[in-house]
Amino acid sequence: MRATTIHAAGDIRVEEVPDPTITSPTDAIVKVTASCICGSDLWPYRGFNDITPGDTIGHECIGVVEEVGSEVSDFKAGDFVIVPFDHCDNTCTHCRVGAHAGCVNLGFTTSGQAEYALVTQANGSMVKTDGVPDRSLLPSLLALSDVMATGWHAAVSAGVTKGSTAVVVGDGAVGLCGVLAAAQLGAERVIAMSRHEPRQAIARQFGATHIVAERDKEGADRIKEITDGVGADAVLECVGTDQSIKTAFAVARPGATVGFVGVPHDVELPVRRMFQKNIGLAGGMAPVRKYLPELLDLTLSGAIDPGLVFDLTLPLDQSPEGYRAMDERRAIKVLLEP
Amino acid sequence: MRATTIHAAGDIRVEEVPDPTITSPTDAIVKVTASCICGSDLWPYRGFNDITPGDTIGHECIGVVEEVGSEVSDFKAGDFVIVPFDHCDNTCTHCRVGAHAGCVNLGFTTSGQAEYALVTQANGSMVKTDGVPDRSLLPSLLALSDVMATGWHAAVSAGVTKGSTAVVVGDGAVGLCGVLAAAQLGAERVIAMSRHEPRQAIARQFGATHIVAERDKEGADRIKEITDGVGADAVLECVGTDQSIKTAFAVARPGATVGFVGVPHDVELPVRRMFQKNIGLAGGMAPVRKYLPELLDLTLSGAIDPGLVFDLTLPLDQSPEGYRAMDERRAIKVLLEP
Repeated sequence: MRATTIHAAGDIRVEEVPDPTITSPTDAIVKVTASCICGSDLWPYRGFNDITPGDTIGHECIGVVEEVGSEVSDFKAGDFVIVPFDHCDNTCTHCRVGAHAGCVNLGFTTSGQAEYALVTQANGSMVKTDGVPDRSLLPSLLALSDVMATGWHAAVSAGVTKGSTAVVVGDGAVGLCGVLAAAQLGAERVIAMSRHEPRQAIARQFGATHIVAERDKEGADRIKEITDGVGADAVLECVGTDQSIKTAFAVARPGATVGFVGVPHDVELPVRRMFQKNIGLAGGMAPVRKYLPELLDLTLSGAIDPGLVFDLTLPLDQSPEGYRAMDERRAIKVLLEP
Repeated sequence: MRATTIHAAGDIRVEEVPDPTITSPTDAIVKVTASCICGSDLWPYRGFNDITPGDTIGHECIGVVEEVGSEVSDFKAGDFVIVPFDHCDNTCTHCRVGAHAGCVNLGFTTSGQAEYALVTQANGSMVKTDGVPDRSLLPSLLALSDVMATGWHAAVSAGVTKGSTAVVVGDGAVGLCGVLAAAQLGAERVIAMSRHEPRQAIARQFGATHIVAERDKEGADRIKEITDGVGADAVLECVGTDQSIKTAFAVARPGATVGFVGVPHDVELPVRRMFQKNIGLAGGMAPVRKYLPELLDLTLSGAIDPGLVFDLTLPLDQSPEGYRAMDERRAIKVLLEP
């Protein structure tokens, strides 16, 4: 099949690789209808993560079931499915308490940006739609495989409640979905930290009531102003750098929780501030399957339209250009069509 | 008045210092009936915190109101009160959401181990009993000024629920109160990590169902065994060292929360594990006033008896011996009588 591969930092290719095959009875193969590039794919692209040259890349996709293993009872060839980037059995002791990201049979989509993807725990992970959805819905459904579920996890972990004030640190696709999640969960004030006009516009569409373009100390001061010196009840940390984490804790009021979903890189948590001000930290890798049924309902009913985060659609063959566009921040999030 | 003072690491004295005086209308002076030495007092005693030579020390006390400022409407001379170590107005925007430790008028008891203590936000902080309580109740009431409220905060922050499995890291007085809190909040299994026989005995009295004497990796392995490989639903971190924090996260199951109340010293949080396994961190300095009415009811009804953590009672004049006894772990917690 044709698949996006990574060979070194900055070296993304589309080439022929072997088709995935069923090797476990819990596996399924999905023919990819749409996939996309994630902010976290930029970490290896930028040389911050180890790379095995020639590995396929991409963990977000939706598509049509091609083949299932013998134990996959809930799906059959032809079903249209959303594939959580993190696969889980949805039955183990951790899944049962909603900690699907800690599933004892955890797996990941590893060839999302390709013609076919392998799902290692198909029964537990995938969620299907009634028939093949309208093409206009595909971007929003694709967003449920990771970015929207991750933004939702940030908001839930941060404890966003009706009438609360939420701050979203990060204006990437996850941050924007965090804005959407916070608004949907009833936050009265949703403050998006963003310096980029096109991203600010989407944040507003998603329900941001305030935009703060300043960063670091200036940004925190601005948020203090907006909140009459109180700070945020809930903070969504959607980047994962030391700078963004520090900003998140700086704008959190005493007793607040920072919900973090940006994969942390060289982060040192401000443990003294956390202790003195009782500011908690929760979240992590999103338990996508946990939220998927609810998010699917919200998407199909039109209550949320997370697909707006895709501002560039390319054929799979142009994956390398997609990476460049996201790396250079010319695109928020790139959708790929095999 | 006679007061315990600290002059340098290891140099504790009892000497004459000026009586505290009312300088703000929200102040009250309390004549101390009983006070005690806190594990956190050992940090400066051991040279880990800065010291201003001659400063009074001690933040836990109960006693009788001696004098009140003009705005202290709820108390009068003669009232018997429990004094939270952290003073708060109980009305500010942070207090109103239960984050009393972040009160905009935060203050602390600074001469608890003395004849008199100043309470800077008397109306908001203190809680009184009906009349002077029976002498046998004094240790348990004294425990409410910090150690029991702090153990309770660890359990509440860790999210202990009915039927859950809680692990308590630390067998100091706070850890033991954490055991009592976890049991009181309905945990089915309460695993106390303790190597010391007398502390193990109190842990059992307080409701520990399991004692793990091993530490670090061996301790974590033992807890994995007890929990059938799952780990703890809630972890109470009651020490504050890097080692204890790492143990706390090691024994937490995916999706769990570590409730931390040990003042952190040179701690580096395991942010990758927190992210990958969705293990949250919550807690910090205890909002004593928030819990005090409930804990007072539990104490007066006999449901809890946190005073058992005091295993040595000394006259105030022997404060220095009290510090030595706790430093050398000859005593769990020392009660001082002026």
